[in-house]
Amino acid sequence: MNHQTLEFRSDNCGSAAPEIIEALVRANQGSAVGYGADALTSDLNATLSDVFESKLRVFPIPTGTGANALALAACGTPFGAVYCSPEAHINTSECNAVGFFGGGLKVSPIDGIDGKVCPVSLEKNLTVAGFGQAHKSQPVALNLVQATDLGAVYSTEEISQLSALAHARKLSVHMDGARFANALAHLGCSPAEMTWKAGVDILSLGVTKNGGLLSDAIVVFNPDIADKIDFHLRRGGMIWSKMRFASAQILAYVENDLWLRLARQSNAAAQQLAQGINRIPAARLIAPVQANELFVEMSVTALDRLANQGVLFYRRGPELARFVCRWDTTQEEVKQLLALIETGSHA
Amino acid sequence: MNHQTLEFRSDNCGSAAPEIIEALVRANQGSAVGYGADALTSDLNATLSDVFESKLRVFPIPTGTGANALALAACGTPFGAVYCSPEAHINTSECNAVGFFGGGLKVSPIDGIDGKVCPVSLEKNLTVAGFGQAHKSQPVALNLVQATDLGAVYSTEEISQLSALAHARKLSVHMDGARFANALAHLGCSPAEMTWKAGVDILSLGVTKNGGLLSDAIVVFNPDIADKIDFHLRRGGMIWSKMRFASAQILAYVENDLWLRLARQSNAAAQQLAQGINRIPAARLIAPVQANELFVEMSVTALDRLANQGVLFYRRGPELARFVCRWDTTQEEVKQLLALIETGSHA
Amino acid sequence: MNHQTLEFRSDNCGSAAPEIIEALVRANQGSAVGYGADALTSDLNATLSDVFESKLRVFPIPTGTGANALALAACGTPFGAVYCSPEAHINTSECNAVGFFGGGLKVSPIDGIDGKVCPVSLEKNLTVAGFGQAHKSQPVALNLVQATDLGAVYSTEEISQLSALAHARKLSVHMDGARFANALAHLGCSPAEMTWKAGVDILSLGVTKNGGLLSDAIVVFNPDIADKIDFHLRRGGMIWSKMRFASAQILAYVENDLWLRLARQSNAAAQQLAQGINRIPAARLIAPVQANELFVEMSVTALDRLANQGVLFYRRGPELARFVCRWDTTQEEVKQLLALIETGSHA
Amino acid sequence: MNHQTLEFRSDNCGSAAPEIIEALVRANQGSAVGYGADALTSDLNATLSDVFESKLRVFPIPTGTGANALALAACGTPFGAVYCSPEAHINTSECNAVGFFGGGLKVSPIDGIDGKVCPVSLEKNLTVAGFGQAHKSQPVALNLVQATDLGAVYSTEEISQLSALAHARKLSVHMDGARFANALAHLGCSPAEMTWKAGVDILSLGVTKNGGLLSDAIVVFNPDIADKIDFHLRRGGMIWSKMRFASAQILAYVENDLWLRLARQSNAAAQQLAQGINRIPAARLIAPVQANELFVEMSVTALDRLANQGVLFYRRGPELARFVCRWDTTQEEVKQLLALIETGSHA
Repeated sequence: MNHQTLEFRSDNCGSAAPEIIEALVRANQGSAVGYGADALTSDLNATLSDVFESKLRVFPIPTGTGANALALAACGTPFGAVYCSPEAHINTSECNAVGFFGGGLKVSPIDGIDGKVCPVSLEKNLTVAGFGQAHKSQPVALNLVQATDLGAVYSTEEISQLSALAHARKLSVHMDGARFANALAHLGCSPAEMTWKAGVDILSLGVTKNGGLLSDAIVVFNPDIADKIDFHLRRGGMIWSKMRFASAQILAYVENDLWLRLARQSNAAAQQLAQGINRIPAARLIAPVQANELFVEMSVTALDRLANQGVLFYRRGPELARFVCRWDTTQEEVKQLLALIETGSHA
Repeated sequence: MNHQTLEFRSDNCGSAAPEIIEALVRANQGSAVGYGADALTSDLNATLSDVFESKLRVFPIPTGTGANALALAACGTPFGAVYCSPEAHINTSECNAVGFFGGGLKVSPIDGIDGKVCPVSLEKNLTVAGFGQAHKSQPVALNLVQATDLGAVYSTEEISQLSALAHARKLSVHMDGARFANALAHLGCSPAEMTWKAGVDILSLGVTKNGGLLSDAIVVFNPDIADKIDFHLRRGGMIWSKMRFASAQILAYVENDLWLRLARQSNAAAQQLAQGINRIPAARLIAPVQANELFVEMSVTALDRLANQGVLFYRRGPELARFVCRWDTTQEEVKQLLALIETGSHA
Repeated sequence: MNHQTLEFRSDNCGSAAPEIIEALVRANQGSAVGYGADALTSDLNATLSDVFESKLRVFPIPTGTGANALALAACGTPFGAVYCSPEAHINTSECNAVGFFGGGLKVSPIDGIDGKVCPVSLEKNLTVAGFGQAHKSQPVALNLVQATDLGAVYSTEEISQLSALAHARKLSVHMDGARFANALAHLGCSPAEMTWKAGVDILSLGVTKNGGLLSDAIVVFNPDIADKIDFHLRRGGMIWSKMRFASAQILAYVENDLWLRLARQSNAAAQQLAQGINRIPAARLIAPVQANELFVEMSVTALDRLANQGVLFYRRGPELARFVCRWDTTQEEVKQLLALIETGSHA
Repeated sequence: MNHQTLEFRSDNCGSAAPEIIEALVRANQGSAVGYGADALTSDLNATLSDVFESKLRVFPIPTGTGANALALAACGTPFGAVYCSPEAHINTSECNAVGFFGGGLKVSPIDGIDGKVCPVSLEKNLTVAGFGQAHKSQPVALNLVQATDLGAVYSTEEISQLSALAHARKLSVHMDGARFANALAHLGCSPAEMTWKAGVDILSLGVTKNGGLLSDAIVVFNPDIADKIDFHLRRGGMIWSKMRFASAQILAYVENDLWLRLARQSNAAAQQLAQGINRIPAARLIAPVQANELFVEMSVTALDRLANQGVLFYRRGPELARFVCRWDTTQEEVKQLLALIETGSHA
C-alpha cells in the first residue's frame, strides 16, 4: 500500500493473519488423500464441533458467495423463496448466485432496519405467502446476516425470535456470517448461543475478511441439510482436491481464539472511529456500529475531498460512505482518518 | 504419509512445491484491492501473455472442475452439446458440473482411443448433428484433455486437425489441461504451439496436480469468449476477494519454468515405472505412457496383493489399476513399487 | 356454472369464443408437417405482421407464464435482472418461472402506482445498478404489464417514455400482454402504436383470458431476440407437434377484430360495474378501471357476506376483493353483483 | 395434404380423432375454476385411476418432451443421471430438455438392441456407477420408451426385469409412452400390467401422436413423486388456466377404448406395410415392427426416388428410412407406398 493512502475500503483488502499463513505452510507435509478425506479436514470437523458444542459438519469453500448460495440451495427446492433484508449481500452483491445454485430459487427482500429482518415484516410476509399454491414461490429459508450489511449485530434474542417464526412455517434458518467473529466478539456470547441454540440451521462462516486468505466454510448444524452438500459442492466445482490446505486455514482461525482476537481488533478500531465521528457534527452514522463497518453520511464535497486526500473507501451513495476496519487497522490510521474528516468538515 | 505405504493414488495427493508456498507467503504484504483488481493479478495476466506469446486473459479459479465447466458454459448456449472422449473427466468425474454451469448443456462422448477424440468420429457426429434444428442439442464446443485421461498426449498436429474440424462448424475448442505441463514437457513444444497456434480457444490450466495447492486457472485466447467470464465466475461464487493469494501461486508456477521442471520429474518417474512394467509379463499397459499416469492391467489377485502390501492406488476395474507419479515421487518409490509388482506376478 | 353463483373470479374461468373453437375444428383437415412448419402457422406469422404493421415472428405457446418467462430469458443473460412493478405477475404469481427459464435471472420489483413501473424509480434504479460490475445482477429487461395487474392501462406515451429509458441502457422492453386486447380496446390506438412504435421489443400476447382456450403467443418485434426462441421453446417442452391447432386459435382471435370485440365486451361490463361501485360509499376502487379487472376495498364482513351469497371472486387481502369481467359476462350478472354489494353495504 | 403425396413422416402429422375434437367442443360450457381444479380434470383423475386399476395422479401437459423432462426432473436430484437407450427420444431429440428441467440432470445412454435398454448393460453400469461418490452423477432414474424409438415393444416381463434392477438401486422407473397405446394394443395386456404392475413409477402418456391434438399427460403411480409436480409444472409454464379443455381431450382418448381402437388401426397399417416390405429383397427392416413405426434400409438411389415421387418420410441416415403409420393411414396408402418401393427396387 502506498504510504500516502489510508485503507478503509474493505476487510478483504487486508492481509492474512500470520498464524493462518503458518498453518498453511505446516500443512505441506507428505501426501494426503484428496477431496476432504484427509486428516486435517477430519480434525477441522472435530474442532469446530467442540467450538460450537454440537456435532456438526464443516465444508471449506472458496468464497462467501459460494457458501451463501450453496447453503441456501441446500435448504430447499427450486420453487422456493428466501427471505432476507433489502441490504443483504445475497440480494445486492452476489450476481444471481442464489438463483443459479438454487435452480431459479428466488431472493425476496423484506423490510427491516439497520440491515436486519424485521419480525413483524417476516410474519406478515409468511401469512400471505401462499404455502402450497403452485403459482407462489414457496418460502424455504430465512437469511440473517450477522453482523448485518449496515454494521449492526442481531442479539441472540432477535435471532431466536426470527428463527422461531421461520421454523413455525418449516423454513430453514441460514446465517450469513461473513463477519461472524465480529458479531460474536461484540455479543460476548458463545458460538453455540449465536447459532444453533438460537435456531440457526446452517452457517456461512466467514474467514477471509477477518484474517483468512482463500477459504471460508459452510457449517451445518441440521443434519437433514448436510446430506447433499457434497454433491452441491462437487457439481459447483467447489471441492479442492488438496483440501488439507483449506482446512488448515480454518483450523488455525478458530484455534486459540484467534478469530475472536482478530475480530476484537477490528471492532475496537471501528469503535474508536465511531466515537470520533460522533464528535463531528458534519458526519452522521446511519446505523449502530457494533462490528467493524461504519456507514457515514457526509456532504458530497467532504467525501470528494477525502477521496482526493488518499483515503480509500467505497461510496454507497453520493453522500454515504462506508469505512471498514481490518484486524490490522492501526489506532494511528484511525486517528489520521478522523483528522481528515474533521478538517474537511470545517472547510 | 506412513512410511509403510507407497503413494500412487493421484497427483493431487502430493505436496505443494516450496516455490509456490513461498510466493503465497510473500504475497501477504500490505493491503490490496479485492476481486482481482490487484497488482499480482495484473502481473499474472502480463506474465502468462508472455509465456503464451499472445495477449490473453487469465482467471484464477479454485478447481479444475470449476475451470472446465465454466469454460464450456462460456463457449456456448444452454441448448448446446460438448463433444469429448468417453473417458473425459467432464464426462466421468465432475458430477453434472457442465450441465449445471451450462444451464443443461449436454456432454456428448464420441469414440476415440487412448482417451483422445477421434477426428473421424468427430466429423461423423458433426455431419448428423442437426445444426439449426430445434430438437437437436447444438454442438458448441470440443473438449480435448491434454494429457488424456488414459495418460497419452495429443500431438500438436492432432490438436490442429481436431480444432480445424471444430472451427469449420463454429465450435469452440476447449483444452482441459489438468496435466497441461506434463503434456508440454512430453512434447517439448512451446505453450503457444500446444494451444492457440493449434486452434485452442480456451484452456483449463491445471496447477494443483503439478505442485500447486489451491488454485487452477482459466486461460482465454479468444477474446469473444472472455467477455462474460467475470460474471460466470461471480455468479458461481468463484472469485476470491483476496485474489492476490491465488495469482501469486500461478505466477510462481510458471516463473523460471517451474511448471516444466516439476512435470519433467513426474513424467520421468512414470517412464521409469513404465519401463519396469514392460519387463513384467503379468502386467500390461493399456495406453501409451506419455505423461505421469499409468493404466495397468493385472490379475485381481495381484492387485489385491499390492493393496494389502500398502501400495496406495485406485482401481478402474477389477483388473485395471491406475498409478500416478507426482513431481516428488522418488526413484526409490518407483523401484519399490516395481519390486512389489514383480514379486506379485510370480506368486 | 351453478345458476345460484355469480362468476367474477377470473377471465380464465370463462368459456372460449365460438369463433375460436370453430377455427380449431376447421384446422383438423388432412396431414400437416409438425412443430410449426405448417401452413396455418405460416399464415399466422403473415397475418400478425399485417395486424402489427411490421414483419414480426409469432411463437404460439401454451401459457402466459411460459410466454413471459421464455421471452425474458431470450432478452438476456443469466447474470441479468428484470425490472418490473411489485404487482407484476412475473413477481407474484409465476413460481420462479423467470429464474428457471433464465438460469437464475433475477426479478427486481421497483416502485410505481396502479401496477405501473414509475419512470423516476426506473431511472433511479438504473443509475445505481452497477453496469459492468460482476457482483451486480446486470439489468437486461424491463417488464411492462398491459393492462396492469391492478386493472390500469399504460398510455402509449408512458410506454414510450419507459422504453426510452430502458433502451438508453440497452435493456430490452417486454410487454406482458395477458390482457393486451383489453388495453388496446381502452386506448383505441393501433397494435403497432401500443408496441414496437412505443419501443416494445417482445410481447406476451394473451389469448386465453379473452376467449381463447389453450394457446397464447410470443410476438417478437426485435429480430435479434427472435433467433434462439425456437431452441428455448423446444428445450422447454413448449413446441406442440400439431402446432396447426394452436395457430388456428390465434388466427381466429385476431381475424375480423374478434379480439377487440371480445375485449370491448369485458371492458364494458367492468365499466358498468365500476360506475355502480362508485355510487356505493362502502366500497372503494383502489385503482382506475381501464380494462376488465376491478380491485375493491370493502369491509371484511361485507366480503364474507358476498362470498356466502354465491359470488365467486378472489380476495387479495382481508378487505380487498378482485372482480374480473369476462367477454361473456352479462349486464344482468353485473346488476346482480351490484345489488348484492349495495345490500351488503347497508347491513 | 396434396393428393399427389403419401404421408408417412410422423404420426404427429396426422389429424385428430373426431371423438377428441367433439369432447373439446363439449367442454366449452359455462365457467370453471382454472389451473386444474375443475370438474373435468377431477373426472380425468378418476377415470384414469379406473383404467389403470390404481389410485394415480394425472397431469395434462402440452407436449411429450415436457412430460418426459419434467417427469425425470421429478424423479431425482440435479446431481443425478438417467439411464436410457442410445436411441431414446430424450437423448436424441429433445434439445437438452432433461438437463434444463433437471438442473443439469445427465442423460446416460447405455447399450441395447431394437431401441431397448439391455438388462445386462444396465446392471453393469449400475455396478460401476459410484453411488455416494460426489464426483459421480448419481443414477436416479431409468427411462424406458414404449414402444421403442425403433418400433419395437418391451414385453411386460422385460419391463419387470429392468424395473427390478432399477428399484434394487433405488432408481425410479419412467416410461416414455409417446406411443403407449400402440404398445398396449400390440401386447394385448392391461394398462396396469404394462405399467405399475411391472414396476413403472411414472409415465409420459402420449395422446397427440395417436389422434390427440394439444395435450399429452404425466401419469404418476408412485405418490412420493407426485408431490412436487404441480410446482414443476407451474414453474415450467405448463399449467393451462383453462385446463378443462386439455382434460376433455384425454378423457375422450381413453373412454370407450378409443385409444386402443386408434392404435390398432395404425399398428395394422404398419403390419401391412411390414409384410409387404418383407417380400421386397431390396428393402430390409432393421427392427421388429411391433407398433406403428418402420425403419427400413434401402439404397440411397431408391430412397431418393421415393422422395421425388412424393412420398413424405424422414431419413435417419443416407440408407435408412423411417415410415410411420397414423390411425388414419389407409390400406390404399400403404399399397401405393409398397408399389413405389417395389418399383424402385427393380429400377
